[in-house]
Amino acid sequence: MQPRIPVGVLGATGMVGQSFVKFLEHHPWFELAWVGASDRSAGKKYQEATAWRLGGVMPAAAAGLMVRESTPGNGAPRLMFSAMDASVATEIERAFASAGHVIVSNSRNHRMESDVPLLVPEINASHLKLIPRQQRERGWTGQIVTNPNCSTVVLTMGLAPLKPYGIQRVVATTMQAISGAGYPGVASMDINANVIPYIGGEEEKMQTEAQKILGDLAGDRIEFLPAKVSASCNRVPVVDGHLIAVSVELARKASIEEVRDAFRSFRSVPQERELPSAPVRPLVYMNEQDRPQPRRDAERDNGMAVYIGRLRECPVFDYKFMACGHNTIRGAAGAAVLNAELMYSEGLLD
Amino acid sequence: MQPRIPVGVLGATGMVGQSFVKFLEHHPWFELAWVGASDRSAGKKYQEATAWRLGGVMPAAAAGLMVRESTPGNGAPRLMFSAMDASVATEIERAFASAGHVIVSNSRNHRMESDVPLLVPEINASHLKLIPRQQRERGWTGQIVTNPNCSTVVLTMGLAPLKPYGIQRVVATTMQAISGAGYPGVASMDINANVIPYIGGEEEKMQTEAQKILGDLAGDRIEFLPAKVSASCNRVPVVDGHLIAVSVELARKASIEEVRDAFRSFRSVPQERELPSAPVRPLVYMNEQDRPQPRRDAERDNGMAVYIGRLRECPVFDYKFMACGHNTIRGAAGAAVLNAELMYSEGLLD
Amino acid sequence: MQPRIPVGVLGATGMVGQSFVKFLEHHPWFELAWVGASDRSAGKKYQEATAWRLGGVMPAAAAGLMVRESTPGNGAPRLMFSAMDASVATEIERAFASAGHVIVSNSRNHRMESDVPLLVPEINASHLKLIPRQQRERGWTGQIVTNPNCSTVVLTMGLAPLKPYGIQRVVATTMQAISGAGYPGVASMDINANVIPYIGGEEEKMQTEAQKILGDLAGDRIEFLPAKVSASCNRVPVVDGHLIAVSVELARKASIEEVRDAFRSFRSVPQERELPSAPVRPLVYMNEQDRPQPRRDAERDNGMAVYIGRLRECPVFDYKFMACGHNTIRGAAGAAVLNAELMYSEGLLD
Amino acid sequence: MQPRIPVGVLGATGMVGQSFVKFLEHHPWFELAWVGASDRSAGKKYQEATAWRLGGVMPAAAAGLMVRESTPGNGAPRLMFSAMDASVATEIERAFASAGHVIVSNSRNHRMESDVPLLVPEINASHLKLIPRQQRERGWTGQIVTNPNCSTVVLTMGLAPLKPYGIQRVVATTMQAISGAGYPGVASMDINANVIPYIGGEEEKMQTEAQKILGDLAGDRIEFLPAKVSASCNRVPVVDGHLIAVSVELARKASIEEVRDAFRSFRSVPQERELPSAPVRPLVYMNEQDRPQPRRDAERDNGMAVYIGRLRECPVFDYKFMACGHNTIRGAAGAAVLNAELMYSEGLLD
Repeated sequence: MQPRIPVGVLGATGMVGQSFVKFLEHHPWFELAWVGASDRSAGKKYQEATAWRLGGVMPAAAAGLMVRESTPGNGAPRLMFSAMDASVATEIERAFASAGHVIVSNSRNHRMESDVPLLVPEINASHLKLIPRQQRERGWTGQIVTNPNCSTVVLTMGLAPLKPYGIQRVVATTMQAISGAGYPGVASMDINANVIPYIGGEEEKMQTEAQKILGDLAGDRIEFLPAKVSASCNRVPVVDGHLIAVSVELARKASIEEVRDAFRSFRSVPQERELPSAPVRPLVYMNEQDRPQPRRDAERDNGMAVYIGRLRECPVFDYKFMACGHNTIRGAAGAAVLNAELMYSEGLLD
Repeated sequence: MQPRIPVGVLGATGMVGQSFVKFLEHHPWFELAWVGASDRSAGKKYQEATAWRLGGVMPAAAAGLMVRESTPGNGAPRLMFSAMDASVATEIERAFASAGHVIVSNSRNHRMESDVPLLVPEINASHLKLIPRQQRERGWTGQIVTNPNCSTVVLTMGLAPLKPYGIQRVVATTMQAISGAGYPGVASMDINANVIPYIGGEEEKMQTEAQKILGDLAGDRIEFLPAKVSASCNRVPVVDGHLIAVSVELARKASIEEVRDAFRSFRSVPQERELPSAPVRPLVYMNEQDRPQPRRDAERDNGMAVYIGRLRECPVFDYKFMACGHNTIRGAAGAAVLNAELMYSEGLLD
Repeated sequence: MQPRIPVGVLGATGMVGQSFVKFLEHHPWFELAWVGASDRSAGKKYQEATAWRLGGVMPAAAAGLMVRESTPGNGAPRLMFSAMDASVATEIERAFASAGHVIVSNSRNHRMESDVPLLVPEINASHLKLIPRQQRERGWTGQIVTNPNCSTVVLTMGLAPLKPYGIQRVVATTMQAISGAGYPGVASMDINANVIPYIGGEEEKMQTEAQKILGDLAGDRIEFLPAKVSASCNRVPVVDGHLIAVSVELARKASIEEVRDAFRSFRSVPQERELPSAPVRPLVYMNEQDRPQPRRDAERDNGMAVYIGRLRECPVFDYKFMACGHNTIRGAAGAAVLNAELMYSEGLLD
Repeated sequence: MQPRIPVGVLGATGMVGQSFVKFLEHHPWFELAWVGASDRSAGKKYQEATAWRLGGVMPAAAAGLMVRESTPGNGAPRLMFSAMDASVATEIERAFASAGHVIVSNSRNHRMESDVPLLVPEINASHLKLIPRQQRERGWTGQIVTNPNCSTVVLTMGLAPLKPYGIQRVVATTMQAISGAGYPGVASMDINANVIPYIGGEEEKMQTEAQKILGDLAGDRIEFLPAKVSASCNRVPVVDGHLIAVSVELARKASIEEVRDAFRSFRSVPQERELPSAPVRPLVYMNEQDRPQPRRDAERDNGMAVYIGRLRECPVFDYKFMACGHNTIRGAAGAAVLNAELMYSEGLLD
């Protein structure tokens, strides 16, 4: 076994940061070697700076790491995952990229910039070709690559197999888990035995990010998918796993068998290259009439697959179906790590 | 105060029946005088035959009633509410109607028959004009009037003010409370911290019932609203209150202010006649960006109003909004009682 | 109808304050005339200063009140309810009492002071006789009267009928609702489908407050009940209503029938005087083997009764039973209002 | 790797049976070779006879097994786990034991019989010495060994390290997960945002089983621990994991450090023999003031450890603490499998 590549996590003490720390615990290629957080935490051990909110206990290897300031230098390795809050991510991520670091970010700040890949390895691995332009125009030796919003990942994974049929219009209603709101996040007084029909900025993110992710590379820019996407986002009292009801209109006629087969046979670059975090089947179509369900399905396949079910004809468009995925794994930490694996397999981390 | 009209409840021991018993407790016009159930319960006192599942305790006046067999005669009053399970409602309701009873039913069995009003008093009071045809063609001295499925009531109440703008297409995704499934209903192992993306038969009911309810009376038949309706129905861990995300396409241009005003100013026959169970405002538009919410809003206004919020432009259709209502009150027992009040005000119970 | 007595609420914008505002909405004796909060809110209308967290919407009469600074003067009426956070309550309550106000406080700050009544009107109305000493020793023209911690109220109400039998030892394990933690209070990530076996300071409060409440007035001081009380406090995912499992050792032999009768026949001063917020039966003994339950029982009787059930022999002590009550009504706002009603009936507000 | 021992599961299609099937999936010693259920299921494949209720999907190896009738013969292997419902377990288990099978049962039916070990390998491995008497007196070539009720396991594991100090009296209040009630089990209408303060028969089981488990072998019988145990059992809306608040009186003085060390250093036979399902540390003492918690802790260590926390002095007895364990693993399927591993290591399966 060859030595693992040292990696760092910016924003490591927050909920998303903790997801990175947990997801990286037994990673075969990457080794968590550096954790950064706010100045308030810098200088403490990770276990002292962090109130662990995930199930179980903090990975022992992380517990003893010294928390660093979120500035380049400080021994930060070249490959850095960013779990920073949007309020601070813009400047810090740029500073690291400018200083030669590869920033694989879960933050929303740079997602929609025209020279930044908004990467889902199963869908748009080619978007990594934006990087030379990004480096050239910004004068960076490093780079920034982003993954989408958690609910966008689930939606676009469900839509990707339908792209050959010409996605025209999409109406998506989400039922999102509380872990997506961080910590303390949603007050229990708001969500216990309740639904909150609003998640700030989420609908806009889903609507625009989906168009970019499903878009095509044209030279050194992305042509957005010219589909109309309407999202309604709701918070439900579920711990992990976003569930989405999707209705979709297609340009080309497809039988229900063709669509189901498209879900079932969907494989892509991460599967071909056997990237360590890639699920064998990125989409799992479930035949049971009452699946997928977040509590029962989101954690399967290490939280990296997206579960599809209830494909049926839509009286308004062509088809409707349900999609479910783990929001803090496939929708955040796991998404970024898979991005980094793809980049490594492309030689972009050399 | 004049004497109240005696009424009966068929299927009185089940969850919906209990909702009727509770809703009628202090009714100014109707007095619960008769309860019917399966043969197994007949002959017992209501309090002995019934495991009370609603909050609080059984109304004292009902507790001492003798449970009767569900056959005409037995002292059954003319006005009968039906809370029977669909598996038995068809024959029993017909037997009572044939015997001269006015059956105001929450069961789904007769809803879609062409001579049976599927009544929401705020929307289609005129559909009561089907009754003479029903009586003539069936040779009944009594009659059957129905109310819609619980989620359909909430959806159609939200759509009714938009009918003047020409409803073309509707995509609706529900998040429905567990009380809608009766008792024992949904197993806690299925729904605790979970969402179940399936409710048997519900999507079909919403799609077809909505077209009938919003249709127009033409002579002695209903012309269904020629709108396409697509429903995705989900069960969420909420006790009472169905929440629906609605996207709607309109034939005629309407500004967002016009639509909001249409919700706000919506009044109809029950309000004009000040029917006892009619909410002063049948629709309550909420300005807060995160409302309506089932736990906080469904029980307001005695559970009889429908709460609307988050009206915004839809990238796919014209507008999207949220609608929320109490599923066992406005969506079941209260709906039927309001129907009976409308019928009484029309002189149909004389 | 004679004019109502104007009252104020200190800390009116918080969760407990909102409970006061709601509970006072239709009060026959008291009229909410003044609301105080932090300087940040002062000068705004109550509806602008307050994010309403309770079910339904803010009472209209309160919505338009101007929020005042929490200092005497400012038009504050003589009778003031305190819903202030413990971090600020000590000084402000004293300032008001010193300035001649009657402070009926839900805050914990003064509860255990030897000259301050810790009042539960059904249990220790006589403790109001501490007031002359309080006024004399502190040189106040006003006064401070307190109500217990929310779980202590439920426990002591359940124990009160057993006092004649000589309460020796009590082991109490609570399952407490999230509303007891205020807003934002408990993070949903902590409590969703979980139990948190810790509530800071709660066990100590229950153990000592119970001894004071159940103690006897001896001259102008309270002799604490010499019972040993052990509490284990847990937070459960319930919205409203604290449930407590109680095991109790008695000095004198009592049959199970005697104990059950003691619960059932318990009446006290508030019932005799028919205080407006007093439940007809302060304790309701439920025969069903699986009651009381917080979601089904806490809101009954306007949230002011305590529900008892499952009385059975305890293999370790004499008896064990369950007690349940509404934590923000009988355990907070309603408790304080009932205290004020008792004081009014004693002529202490003249 | 040597061939695995074939094992069967009686009652394999129910919830507990499914737990066995899942727990055995990758077992190093035992291989699931036989599944039995009611006659209604016999003859079908396991995947056809079983609605899988646990997270994820049915283990592939089990899916294809043919379901057999629950009678000896039918190719049933010698070692049989019983997950049968109490209503049928008595006769069937006896028939198998009589026919030479080793029945390792989770059912309650034989637990309290004087010649049947009620086994918790960390506590009373010596109780297996009842087997020769059982076989002799009953004329069996096979045998029956049982594991305790799910909440009893958690309680007794927490008490075991205190046995040297002389356990005198125990008051235990449980907060139990819904999975303990099987499927459909608890209705969501009963438990959503609620607590049910009653679980039929559970308190009695905890009180008597604990005395037997913690008892000493005297010749060929068990002398029950002469401690008084009082249990109050409650159902809470948690998926997996029972949490228990325990107050305990000891005969001998022990400092809090001694007690904490007793929890921390507790090791026993399964650890010494490194049984495959034995947790490295059977008890995990957590220092965090708000742990253990069922959702965050029950699944750790494969669900086989018991988590202890909040050790503190009890005003009534000596100490109080919290104990938490996974009810369907350590409290059921895993408990039985660990029992079988112990028996194998003793040569009892030869």
